[in-house]
This record gives sequence, C-alpha cells and structure tokens, in this order.
Amino acid sequence: MKRVLGRFLRGDLPLNRIEALSDGVFAIIVTLLVLDLKIPELHDPKNAAELCQSLLALAPRFFSWLISFVIVCKFWLNHHHLMRQARSADYGLVWINSIFLMFQSFVPFPTALMGAYPDNALAVSFFGVVMAFNTLLFIGLKAYIVRRRMKPEAENFKAPGGGWVSLIGPAGYLLGASLAWWNIVAAFVCYVITPWFFIVPPQENRK
Amino acid sequence: MKRVLGRFLRGDLPLNRIEALSDGVFAIIVTLLVLDLKIPELHDPKNAAELCQSLLALAPRFFSWLISFVIVCKFWLNHHHLMRQARSADYGLVWINSIFLMFQSFVPFPTALMGAYPDNALAVSFFGVVMAFNTLLFIGLKAYIVRRRMKPEAENFKAPGGGWVSLIGPAGYLLGASLAWWNIVAAFVCYVITPWFFIVPPQENRK
Amino acid sequence: MKRVLGRFLRGDLPLNRIEALSDGVFAIIVTLLVLDLKIPELHDPKNAAELCQSLLALAPRFFSWLISFVIVCKFWLNHHHLMRQARSADYGLVWINSIFLMFQSFVPFPTALMGAYPDNALAVSFFGVVMAFNTLLFIGLKAYIVRRRMKPEAENFKAPGGGWVSLIGPAGYLLGASLAWWNIVAAFVCYVITPWFFIVPPQENRK
Amino acid sequence: MKRVLGRFLRGDLPLNRIEALSDGVFAIIVTLLVLDLKIPELHDPKNAAELCQSLLALAPRFFSWLISFVIVCKFWLNHHHLMRQARSADYGLVWINSIFLMFQSFVPFPTALMGAYPDNALAVSFFGVVMAFNTLLFIGLKAYIVRRRMKPEAENFKAPGGGWVSLIGPAGYLLGASLAWWNIVAAFVCYVITPWFFIVPPQENRK
Repeated sequence: MKRVLGRFLRGDLPLNRIEALSDGVFAIIVTLLVLDLKIPELHDPKNAAELCQSLLALAPRFFSWLISFVIVCKFWLNHHHLMRQARSADYGLVWINSIFLMFQSFVPFPTALMGAYPDNALAVSFFGVVMAFNTLLFIGLKAYIVRRRMKPEAENFKAPGGGWVSLIGPAGYLLGASLAWWNIVAAFVCYVITPWFFIVPPQENRK
Repeated sequence: MKRVLGRFLRGDLPLNRIEALSDGVFAIIVTLLVLDLKIPELHDPKNAAELCQSLLALAPRFFSWLISFVIVCKFWLNHHHLMRQARSADYGLVWINSIFLMFQSFVPFPTALMGAYPDNALAVSFFGVVMAFNTLLFIGLKAYIVRRRMKPEAENFKAPGGGWVSLIGPAGYLLGASLAWWNIVAAFVCYVITPWFFIVPPQENRK
Repeated sequence: MKRVLGRFLRGDLPLNRIEALSDGVFAIIVTLLVLDLKIPELHDPKNAAELCQSLLALAPRFFSWLISFVIVCKFWLNHHHLMRQARSADYGLVWINSIFLMFQSFVPFPTALMGAYPDNALAVSFFGVVMAFNTLLFIGLKAYIVRRRMKPEAENFKAPGGGWVSLIGPAGYLLGASLAWWNIVAAFVCYVITPWFFIVPPQENRK
Repeated sequence: MKRVLGRFLRGDLPLNRIEALSDGVFAIIVTLLVLDLKIPELHDPKNAAELCQSLLALAPRFFSWLISFVIVCKFWLNHHHLMRQARSADYGLVWINSIFLMFQSFVPFPTALMGAYPDNALAVSFFGVVMAFNTLLFIGLKAYIVRRRMKPEAENFKAPGGGWVSLIGPAGYLLGASLAWWNIVAAFVCYVITPWFFIVPPQENRK
C-alpha cells in the first residue's frame, strides 16, 4: 500500500500545462452552462407575447446558470490564487487536481437538473451536495499543496483558511441541501449567500 | 458595506491566467455558435434540390451566426487591447472580467433565438438588448482598469473612447432593438452597422 | 474608403493571445467533430448484432469525421508555421485571422452534412466548396503576412508556395465539388488526395 | 515513397503551440464526457422519488464517465511527461501527435456507447478496443520522440517503459474487450484495473 502511494510522491512537473488544462476545463464549463438554455418552440413564430411567456418560463434555468457561473468562477479564482503558491507538481498533486477538475466538469449536470426541476426537492438538494463535495475537494487540494508543494516564500499563506473557517463553504451548501426538503426558496437563498464567503481568496497574514 | 467592497481591491494577480480563461471562453463561444446550424432532415436523402431548399431556409441562422461571430471577435480584440494596458489584476478586476465573460458566454442564446425566429420582434429586439448590455459591461471593465490598474506608461490611453463616444455602441444596439418593433429589416441594418464603429480599438493620442 | 481601411493598418499586438485564441478554436473544432457521431438507438439493447449493423451504418460519418480532422489539423500546422514568420499583428491581420477562424469553425457543419447525406450530390459538393474557400482564406492570410508583417529574418520564406502552386489546394477541392455531381466516389477520392499536397508546410529555400 | 516520408522529417517547430492544442483537446474531451449525462424526463416534475429512480438508472453512464475521465487524465499526464523530454517537433511528430489527439477526441463516443448499452457485449468490447488502440498510438508517439526528437540531457529516459512492459496497457484493455463477450462484469473490472499500471509515468533510472 505504502509503495503504491509512494509512486504519487514522485515527479516534479512544471505547473504551466496543469494550469492550461485547468483553465481550459474551467472555460468550457462556464460556456457549456449556457447550452442548457434551449430555444423555446413557438406555435406562432411571429408572436412576441408567446415568446415572452416562453422566456419567462426559462427563469429557473437562467437562475441556475447564474449561480453556477458565479460558483465556478469563484473556484477558478481560488484555484488561480492557490497554484501561485505551489512550486511544482508531483503526481499526487496532478491527480488530486484532475479529480477536482472531474467534479468541476460535472457541475453542468446538477445545474441543468435544478433548472429543469426547480420544484423538486431532490434536484435542488442534489445541487447543494455536489457543490459541498466540490468545495471539499478544493480544500483537499489546498491541504496537499500547503503540506507538500509550497514555495518557500509562501509560508505565511498557511495560516488563514486552513482551519475550521474553510468549512463554512461545505456547511453552507449542505445546509441548503437540507433546507430544500423543507422549503425550496430557503435552499436557493442559502446557495446565493454561501459563495460570498470566499468570493475572494482568504487574506494572507503578511507581517 | 465598505468593508465588503474593500475585499475586492486586494490581490495582485498576474494577468496570464485571466487572459487564458478569457481566450478559452471566447474561443468556445465563437465555435459553439455554429452548433445552432442543425443538419436539415430530408424526405429523400438523395434529393439535391430538397437539400438546397433546406439550406436556404437556414439563411437567417447563417446571418445570425455571422453577425454574432463578428461582434464576439470585436469584443475579443478590444479585450486583448485593453488587457495590455493593465499591470495586474485585483479581485475586483477578476470579478468584473468574470461577469463580462458570463454575458459573453450568453451570446449564443440570443443568437440562436434571432436565427430561429427572425420574424419575431421580441427575438430580434432581445438580441440588441443583450449586445448593448455586453458593451456596457466592457465599458465598465475599461473604466475600472483605467482608474485602478493602469500601467504607468499607458497613461495616454485614457483620453479617447472614455467619454460619450464609447456609448455609440450601446446606443446603436438599443436603436436596433427599438426599430425591431417597427421594422425588422431596419433592426438588422442597425446590428450590421453598429460593430463597425469600434471594429478596431480607439487610437491612442500619442504625442 | 482609404481612411476606413487605414484603420486596419494600425496596431501592433503581440501574437501570443492571437495564437491562444486560434489554438482554442482549432482544438474545439476537432473535438466537436466527434459530436456528430450519435449513439444509435437499438430495439434490443443487448443485441450485439443489431449494434454492429448500426455502427456500420455510421461509416459515412466516421469517414467525414476522419477527412475533416486531417484537413483541420493541416490548417493548424500551416497556421502555426505561418505565424512563426510574423513579427506582430496589426488590426488587419487580427481580422483576416478572425474571418479565417470563422470559416474554420464552420467546418463541422458541412462535415455533418456530408456524413448524413453521403449520396446527396449537393451535400458532398458543398463540403468541397467550403474547403476550397477556407484554403483561399488561408492563402489570403499568408499573402497579408508576407506583404506586411514579416519578420526581417524570414525573407526567404516568401519564395515558395506564394505563386500558382498554392492554388493546388482550392483547385483540388473544387474539382471534387464538381465531380460530386457526376460520381460521388470520385469526389471522395479527390477530397482524400488534395490534403496531401501541403500536408507539411512548403519548404523554404535556404541558401 | 522515401521522398514522401522524408517530408515529415523536416521542420523544427517549438512545442508550445503543440502543447496548447493538445491541452485544449484534452480539456474539451474531459468536459464533453459529462454531456452524455442527459437530464431525465419526469412524469411528475415535483416527485423526488421518481427523480431518484431516474438518476439511479443513469448509473452505468456515471460509471463510464468516471472510467473515461481517469483514462483521459492518465493520457494527459503521460503526454505532459513525454513532451518535456522532446527538444522540438518535426512534421512527423506533429502528425503522429495529431492522430493521437484524433483518437483521443473519439473517446466520448465509445464512452457514451458503453454508458447507453452496458449489457451489450459489443458496446463494452468496443470501449476496450478503442482504449487499446489509443494506448498503442501513445506508445508510437513515445517511440518516435525517443528515437528522433529527444533532448540530449534526457537520455536516461529511454530505458524504462520502452520494452514489453509498455504493452501491459493495450493487453489489459484487449483482455477486457475479450472478456466482455463472456462476462461483462469481468470486462469492467479489467477496465478499472488496467489504468492503474501507468497511473504515473514510468520512473527514470537516474544513476
């Protein structure tokens, strides 16, 4: 077992292609989100009133799209901030990053599900669970980098956001996921508020 | 409130990954636009005349695709030009850029809508409103950079395009959006002419 | 008129983001091509023989995909080779490149059309016309760079491929497009042979 | 013949744009994989139990997505590792890389096929054959670089993974592809185990 894991501690890859792959995945995710906004079918193609009603019926999908876009951009910003502190990548970092990207690329699915079934408790709850899981993966990525691949000059980066504070994100999403079974509007409120906590990366304690 | 906004003035991120994310999003948008051109279904697969008619029926979609492609490329060029004047990014710049990209990535939706319902006043008008809004977001991004993140040597960049002139774009699109309710061809003419105004970035006053 | 065109001769943009946008568009095109390979619907999901027949029925789509992939990769390689000779971009270069990318991003449409209707003369002919047009756009891009934006040390690049030789590509595709009305297999043969002519960029005359 | 092949040994292209194209293709592949997870249609949009059942019915697609994501990330990591050993690209390398990317971009098709028809021996077998073929293409790419485009300082890279050991991957996938006709679960087990062999690039013998 130890020998298997030991393989992942080898390697010393430059970060540029890891960042390129990550940026590519992030860019595609945020752009794919809009594909869920399907053109409505009209009985009378010239009827502006009918089109207006059809567009208003898309409101939950617009809302899902907006929330997910903000959340994915937030992940991107924090990822960008985090990677600057790393000196290079071993294979363990590559794979944790890949798994993080895997579940980021999964985001369009729960987004579309919540947009399609905004009245379905499971659909709304599922969104929160996925976002909580993604945040935990990011925390894992951060913990790995802080412990193993930190640049020497980035030591002061360790202090904030490393403790219980960083669990606000997952906790907020899980709270929303629970509230969905009781009141769906409350869940949406939770999903809108939670991203605000780490909307910018935690400040380093520069002394 | 001030403390909340103050968070966004922190940070000093290099621009390379912001440009990479932006380029990725732009590249995907322009390439996704073509996905709206669906293969027509033929009763007789070998009938060239029937296929010809089906392709001609796609003309409004080709036209929408063409206009949007040019507009998005224009945004990309101006974005490229603007970013060269910035020295680095704080979190405020990152988020304004993200919101700008969010509504850029929205462009395939009004494009497809106008292509599907070229006789519907609302569909044609909606296109103009979205483009006006996108142009305003770009003006906001530019104003932010000019005020806060300018390279010292790019001072002379401030003068042109910063005043009322830059509102020609939004005004043109909104004029088209209004005309759509009266005469759709006039709206299309407006959408074709408007991008020509800043088809190249405004010239700096080099003295 | 001259004043309008003069605007395009201004500007001095570094090539890195132009290459990044181009690479992004190329990468998405080649990957989108596969989306035309739709999963067949089976009456009996467990029936391997039925699936086999369905996959064989996709053969024309596989073939279209393969040809287009090779052609787009060829464009990418020649684009890469060409851009290395340029010193920087003015706005004219940016826009010619954008229009070139626009019609590159159009390639999935004629590819899907030919894959869907391989027995339809118009569908097969349309493919050739689009490829000829794309090659002409590339020749235009090359002519612009050779005339205006060449690196001083790349002077010897001018000689080959600048004359009638470079028209082999468009001529081959147009020949295929004509043959399609007479014999479709002959057109396919033409489309397979033509890309071989500039499968690698023309050799410079190094003396 | 020799003259035709000789053309491919010319050229001396920097690797940055080849890596950019490759990273773009990899990023799009892994993100497109999720598009196969379609939102289920519900009779009663508010019914959480019905949605739950529909999601569980998607389990084979989730599983296919997961396996393919890991395999494509593995290819990306090995590609990244390999390219670092190369000094520059001739046209032969560009084209072998392009063909490698072509069949990488094909991966979403067998993935979706296996996800849609997990009980169909051909669908499951096809997945293994494609993965074996992709691995062989990578081995070919590696052999070409090792023989022709190696950096002088990367000589010690030649030893491991160049012999029979590197055939474990194709052999494992082909074993799975054969087992699919006998027992589908055994094939899945094979597909899960095989990627573990080169989950990290083979270690160099540093002396």
